[in-house]
Amino acid sequence: MTTITEAKVLITCPGRNYVTLKIATSDGVTGIGDATLNGRELSVASYLRDHVCPLLIGKDPSCIERIWQYLYKGAYWRRGPVTMTAIAAVDVALWDIKGKRAGLPVYQLLGGASRDGVTVYGHASGEDIPGLLDEVGRLLDRGFRAVRAQAAVPGVGTVHGVPEGQRNAGEPAAVERPLVEGWDTGRYLNWVPRYMAMVRQEFGHGFHLLHDVHHRLTPIEAAHLGKSLELFRMFWIEDPTPAEDQEAFRLIRQHTTAPLAVGEVFNSIWDCQYLITERLIDYIRTSVSHAGGISHLRKILSLAELYGVRSGAHGAGDVSPVSFAAALHVDLSVQNFGMQEYMEYLPPCQEVFKTTWSFEDGLMHPGDAPGIGVEYDEEAAARFAYDPKYLPVNTLADGSVHDW
Amino acid sequence: MTTITEAKVLITCPGRNYVTLKIATSDGVTGIGDATLNGRELSVASYLRDHVCPLLIGKDPSCIERIWQYLYKGAYWRRGPVTMTAIAAVDVALWDIKGKRAGLPVYQLLGGASRDGVTVYGHASGEDIPGLLDEVGRLLDRGFRAVRAQAAVPGVGTVHGVPEGQRNAGEPAAVERPLVEGWDTGRYLNWVPRYMAMVRQEFGHGFHLLHDVHHRLTPIEAAHLGKSLELFRMFWIEDPTPAEDQEAFRLIRQHTTAPLAVGEVFNSIWDCQYLITERLIDYIRTSVSHAGGISHLRKILSLAELYGVRSGAHGAGDVSPVSFAAALHVDLSVQNFGMQEYMEYLPPCQEVFKTTWSFEDGLMHPGDAPGIGVEYDEEAAARFAYDPKYLPVNTLADGSVHDW
Amino acid sequence: MTTITEAKVLITCPGRNYVTLKIATSDGVTGIGDATLNGRELSVASYLRDHVCPLLIGKDPSCIERIWQYLYKGAYWRRGPVTMTAIAAVDVALWDIKGKRAGLPVYQLLGGASRDGVTVYGHASGEDIPGLLDEVGRLLDRGFRAVRAQAAVPGVGTVHGVPEGQRNAGEPAAVERPLVEGWDTGRYLNWVPRYMAMVRQEFGHGFHLLHDVHHRLTPIEAAHLGKSLELFRMFWIEDPTPAEDQEAFRLIRQHTTAPLAVGEVFNSIWDCQYLITERLIDYIRTSVSHAGGISHLRKILSLAELYGVRSGAHGAGDVSPVSFAAALHVDLSVQNFGMQEYMEYLPPCQEVFKTTWSFEDGLMHPGDAPGIGVEYDEEAAARFAYDPKYLPVNTLADGSVHDW
Amino acid sequence: MTTITEAKVLITCPGRNYVTLKIATSDGVTGIGDATLNGRELSVASYLRDHVCPLLIGKDPSCIERIWQYLYKGAYWRRGPVTMTAIAAVDVALWDIKGKRAGLPVYQLLGGASRDGVTVYGHASGEDIPGLLDEVGRLLDRGFRAVRAQAAVPGVGTVHGVPEGQRNAGEPAAVERPLVEGWDTGRYLNWVPRYMAMVRQEFGHGFHLLHDVHHRLTPIEAAHLGKSLELFRMFWIEDPTPAEDQEAFRLIRQHTTAPLAVGEVFNSIWDCQYLITERLIDYIRTSVSHAGGISHLRKILSLAELYGVRSGAHGAGDVSPVSFAAALHVDLSVQNFGMQEYMEYLPPCQEVFKTTWSFEDGLMHPGDAPGIGVEYDEEAAARFAYDPKYLPVNTLADGSVHDW
Repeated sequence: MTTITEAKVLITCPGRNYVTLKIATSDGVTGIGDATLNGRELSVASYLRDHVCPLLIGKDPSCIERIWQYLYKGAYWRRGPVTMTAIAAVDVALWDIKGKRAGLPVYQLLGGASRDGVTVYGHASGEDIPGLLDEVGRLLDRGFRAVRAQAAVPGVGTVHGVPEGQRNAGEPAAVERPLVEGWDTGRYLNWVPRYMAMVRQEFGHGFHLLHDVHHRLTPIEAAHLGKSLELFRMFWIEDPTPAEDQEAFRLIRQHTTAPLAVGEVFNSIWDCQYLITERLIDYIRTSVSHAGGISHLRKILSLAELYGVRSGAHGAGDVSPVSFAAALHVDLSVQNFGMQEYMEYLPPCQEVFKTTWSFEDGLMHPGDAPGIGVEYDEEAAARFAYDPKYLPVNTLADGSVHDW
Repeated sequence: MTTITEAKVLITCPGRNYVTLKIATSDGVTGIGDATLNGRELSVASYLRDHVCPLLIGKDPSCIERIWQYLYKGAYWRRGPVTMTAIAAVDVALWDIKGKRAGLPVYQLLGGASRDGVTVYGHASGEDIPGLLDEVGRLLDRGFRAVRAQAAVPGVGTVHGVPEGQRNAGEPAAVERPLVEGWDTGRYLNWVPRYMAMVRQEFGHGFHLLHDVHHRLTPIEAAHLGKSLELFRMFWIEDPTPAEDQEAFRLIRQHTTAPLAVGEVFNSIWDCQYLITERLIDYIRTSVSHAGGISHLRKILSLAELYGVRSGAHGAGDVSPVSFAAALHVDLSVQNFGMQEYMEYLPPCQEVFKTTWSFEDGLMHPGDAPGIGVEYDEEAAARFAYDPKYLPVNTLADGSVHDW
Repeated sequence: MTTITEAKVLITCPGRNYVTLKIATSDGVTGIGDATLNGRELSVASYLRDHVCPLLIGKDPSCIERIWQYLYKGAYWRRGPVTMTAIAAVDVALWDIKGKRAGLPVYQLLGGASRDGVTVYGHASGEDIPGLLDEVGRLLDRGFRAVRAQAAVPGVGTVHGVPEGQRNAGEPAAVERPLVEGWDTGRYLNWVPRYMAMVRQEFGHGFHLLHDVHHRLTPIEAAHLGKSLELFRMFWIEDPTPAEDQEAFRLIRQHTTAPLAVGEVFNSIWDCQYLITERLIDYIRTSVSHAGGISHLRKILSLAELYGVRSGAHGAGDVSPVSFAAALHVDLSVQNFGMQEYMEYLPPCQEVFKTTWSFEDGLMHPGDAPGIGVEYDEEAAARFAYDPKYLPVNTLADGSVHDW
Repeated sequence: MTTITEAKVLITCPGRNYVTLKIATSDGVTGIGDATLNGRELSVASYLRDHVCPLLIGKDPSCIERIWQYLYKGAYWRRGPVTMTAIAAVDVALWDIKGKRAGLPVYQLLGGASRDGVTVYGHASGEDIPGLLDEVGRLLDRGFRAVRAQAAVPGVGTVHGVPEGQRNAGEPAAVERPLVEGWDTGRYLNWVPRYMAMVRQEFGHGFHLLHDVHHRLTPIEAAHLGKSLELFRMFWIEDPTPAEDQEAFRLIRQHTTAPLAVGEVFNSIWDCQYLITERLIDYIRTSVSHAGGISHLRKILSLAELYGVRSGAHGAGDVSPVSFAAALHVDLSVQNFGMQEYMEYLPPCQEVFKTTWSFEDGLMHPGDAPGIGVEYDEEAAARFAYDPKYLPVNTLADGSVHDW
């Protein structure tokens, strides 16, 4: 029997911190999985290194589902971002190994390609409306068929939900403490319809237009926003309210036909079940790395398919190229693919993670290398030492903490 | 303004691994919180040391709720055992500090004592029925008014839900890999009513009788168990099915009036909300340390009170004496207290954690020392080095992974 | 053990009738609570003096929750404005005492400050539109960030919901019988959008705009009003329909995204539960004094937090400065604060009630004196004898009684 | 126009405290209403004397509904036991006047007699089972067709829900502080089926057997009780759980076909609406005096009729003979009468309240005197001075407050 002989955790910061799990087998195959949890990376690294890696040694790498259950049920303490990101890293590494041993790209093991390419959307973020329009134009010129549009709210400051510098798929501000941002719902609700009107006026309806609220509204405010944007036919409105309160989506749903997307903060199918079975959302945005890996994400998307909900995978720079590649394999194979987020990785990052994916005419493809199609260059990685950073924190005018 | 000047993570293993957070303030007060997550301790330690402690320095320790929200909302990635245990440690340490600064035991800050003492239940676990009866008798002789009874199922092996050696509040087997146990639902369902009948026959109805299924049944099996035990009037049946599937409780509920308890694996009010508001359970067993601390647990119990659900806090040896003391403060203060689990701590543990609680006539009291009433002896702790251990893993006869 | 040694009821009328409960303890601490129920004051005074005060003597003042339950469950006849206002007075007095004994302002006992200050709204009431605009401008000039706007409906008479003379936080008309007002829903529904349009046109969207319907509409009329005001983005529409009929809010909700506020007439969490858990409202307006005190209001707000509902505490001149201060402590401490009503107290009232709160730049703070931060000057109070008065009564054109 | 010329509050204690409102009109007619709220009497007396009576002078006594609405809506602060008992007193007095002016018993104004007599149940309370059996036999011998059976639980003490001395329709213990009773749910649940079995064994099934839980169980415990009593075919199980939590009845309902009765603590139709329209109960026990009088109770019973729910009016010694007589008028007239509670009044009480009702063969009749048929002897009343007393309070073994 082939067994796992080594499992090690690798940390690097080629512009942004990434944690990678590398598993080696007795027949000389290696696989990698992404264990990055932005701003809480080392906790996942410890979870793997101190508690999971020792358990993997000697196990049969081909028993992916059994190992998944062993780690999930065996920990006793289940769910949550740290646990599920750690398990996801193991799961993806094992799929990578299975693909390599079979000489097949992972999507072939998932049932083959259901489509020729994966539609992705890019981020257009402007400090003001002209800046936003420039960004939208830039993406459309490059072939993007879908664009997320966000403009800074006058008097509030930064573009919400966009860490400083992230527009270039970079890193949140490297400060010792999280950047504290501010928020004003009233100004925001007045502002968004104004710039969406200008985006549609300038560029028409020939592309998908998305918007991310970043969990900042109450249900009735989100309902108001949805109504006020209907004229501009949004592809989706993302994360309108804090995602723990799932029944809240029913109130939004009651008032607007704006398609709703949520789930990048979800970690398991139990976080998604109610929203999907009650048909309260249209796109489920769970990522490979934060929701238990390919094995678990497939179960989520299988449930979603039954209820007419499509995928809309999170793909911001906080997931490593390993996760992004894994997402493309899933996207390509499932019937109910909807949309994939895509933020390009910076050159240093591409030195560490050698990828095989391609972008053409707004569509992406994971490539046909065996496994996930990403190789991790440990030498290059070693040049980029871990650099502790935090996501921003959001406060209201009275100093109370608000959702970021 | 008084500020937090130091926050450090302490790890010790006086028979069992415990992680403790110690916070010091500019006015010379220190507080402690329990950050133990059995079998995944170092991940929480990292979460705190690497990501949370730096954020605490300079903050006002009196703003407990604000700091809670800052850590919860500020992490972006919410919920789950690692995150919520880490936040709980901060929260309890801050309540400890607030109590010490006010010169009051924490329960006084929580509204004062709603009762004179806290009813606790002890564990009676027998390798066979005579052994179980001995244990029940021993607890009743010592004054316990409530007893959890478990006997090993013939042909299955160990007493389920009881790690080897734990009967003395000790530690799961110190093996490099988790102990792999086995399970047979059929034998179990036949066995439990037999020994419960004998417990009631031997000791009568003058005490509360509890049982823990440890998540091992399907809903319809659990419904069957509930009906088969009605004659013996159980105080509760605990964790009948895997807790992620909350709607499953409706099926159990439909068939039996056996009171149901669940929640030691829950980490937030969102894990409890459906079970409570749909009235599918009778006791909510969330612990202080795994469910976000005193501040968050109080919100859970306040919700439960409205729905006629009582508390039944987890208090096995996997929570440190700090958490156990914190639980006693909460138990004493809330109106809807139901029952508290209590496993005595071994002498080495008592060397590290100096406690002020008392046990008399089946009731416990946290004592009236300011704060939580537990002092951590760092010198004693240093004598007990971290010793990596795992909870057991459970498999069925065919080798597949089952819930432990 | 410290015990309660005295509990007495004090009545004064420094412009408006206020009933205050004063509790003294064996260690020389005194605490006060507000027992005012506008127009039915003496009934609460009797409830306390004749039935509750004797029960308090000898009790441990630190057991706030236990005393609360003793008075609530012990009375057998539960809920309702008289009962709950009486219990609230005891509860607030005990929190005042606990704070003073701990040397801490009450908000510190409630978990500390979750924000720097409490956003309050002022009342702008005009006999006509120019009068209203003057009032709005006056409030904005003084720094208010939120304004409730009401203008008298032509042909109907007074400003609805505003007792004569109350614009200066004064007293309803001092008549032996209640003032009988009139009402015309049709005129009202035509009139409100006209003046709200002018308010937004004149002062823009840079502040929160509120409106109080005072229970006068049917559900479908309220739905119509909500839709007709959406363009002016109200912060809330208050008390659209009589509050006993809670399911009525579903009809309003079905038609409009106008945020809804209700609850100043509610007395317990059971009055709020359905509206909150069914997500039929956005702000819950229960006051400290009419809803069982700080202990009970916290449970209401904890429930509300889970459902995305924010607080919006009633703070008209019918609650005494004691209740208003208590509200500020709660507002400062809870995570889901939304908005606080604020009507300034007249100079005679300030002679009786010495307060520590402050108003600056639209935000208020309760101050940091131990306890609630209000001292009651019995000598000053004695100068203002009780002066029986009534709230107005409302009738339709045919003489039938309508909601006021 | 005939007007109200006097309204005065009378208090007496012929064995038990009663508050009576007496209204006189310009045409020389007087009517009386019961304003008794056991243990909180003086608060209602103040509500009437200080706030309501002045408003009645000059009003047309024939406008009963308009005056009801004037008092209810005009107070602004609605519902609750004090308010609704006060309004009930006015309402009954006005119906008494209307009857007298018409020369008709009140039941004739309510639509006439729907039945020949009103079935009543008596209380059989025993300190032990033989004592209980004696009491049951005594009632059956006297012609009662329905009996409520309660026996003291061994080891717990008193007969629960029966104030000391009340077995003779007397008064709760005249102590300065409420009598503190104890409770043990486990013992109770084991005990009740045993004595009900003996009652049925001794006296057969030829009479209605009732039981009152007095709000002391959780929903699942009540469900267990209901199942365990099914064999003895109870007429009803009364107040199984605290009545504020109405959804709790659904859980009881799910497990047992035992008919459920509730409502003596309800004060308005809004307290009953959910239980009736969701068909969670079988008998609604609201009383005339605590639920807004005849006018309001009729609306409750009209709703109940629509949903197949019958009346089961509270008639313990805590309502005065005025209320009891009013209840008989209602019972006689409504279609959906179910059962009337009846505790005989002691001789001193009968000196004060001269009644016209009759008891024969288990049925009662209010008599045919004009009005309510009760005259209040002010001279006799003056001999029995108000004697402050409290209902008992209930605590659990740990000292926490439980429902009484």
